[in-house]
Amino acid sequence: MTCSGCSAIVRYIPNQQDRNTQDRNELAATFKALADPTRLAVVERLSIGPAGATELARPFAMALPSFMQHLDVLEHAGIVSSHKSGRTRIYQLTVDPLTDAATWLSTHRNHWHRRLDQLDELLLTT
Amino acid sequence: MTCSGCSAIVRYIPNQQDRNTQDRNELAATFKALADPTRLAVVERLSIGPAGATELARPFAMALPSFMQHLDVLEHAGIVSSHKSGRTRIYQLTVDPLTDAATWLSTHRNHWHRRLDQLDELLLTT
Repeated sequence: MTCSGCSAIVRYIPNQQDRNTQDRNELAATFKALADPTRLAVVERLSIGPAGATELARPFAMALPSFMQHLDVLEHAGIVSSHKSGRTRIYQLTVDPLTDAATWLSTHRNHWHRRLDQLDELLLTT
Repeated sequence: MTCSGCSAIVRYIPNQQDRNTQDRNELAATFKALADPTRLAVVERLSIGPAGATELARPFAMALPSFMQHLDVLEHAGIVSSHKSGRTRIYQLTVDPLTDAATWLSTHRNHWHRRLDQLDELLLTT
């Protein structure tokens, strides 16, 4: 017996491996966007409330077009979103990518921490 | 009254601005090292226990020298450390950089989350 549609169906069911790969690609994109001290300072500033590009750029000795590229990187990675308010574009933080990244870091840090505790206990009891 | 040593002393006391800049540079280096799906998979594997380079490389369709470059990036950023055991180099996770990164993400994500809650309350009461 053959099933002409089966291979197509199987192709459409994402397996754990695919999901892990997709999750890691998304996480890597978040970490790449955060891999810059200027962008980290922008996220810190936006964590206390939304702000316009000019206000965000003020603390940095940088031409506005260069600074805007940093905002574009953060927006492209989904870490910030923006909307027009009159003649100003207002930026605000997006919670989901930061939560996903914090969860991934805490999970794997905790796994390893527990493993170290187990090794310590083993050394004390042997 | 003058103090001939004061300016030298002042130069050696790091101010908050310097500390923030240094912290952000270190965090950016951690995030840069994590900005790659292969390196994320390596951190996930090492969170369950130390492993040799050959074992770590096995899941990846990649030449060993290319894979070793990923391990070098993680080690250079202080995310993993390694030691020789016979003819094998064993890699293990380092807790501190992952903890610092997780703390930074959680702190700023939580600031913004609280701010959103305050805005929601304001909208409900006005």
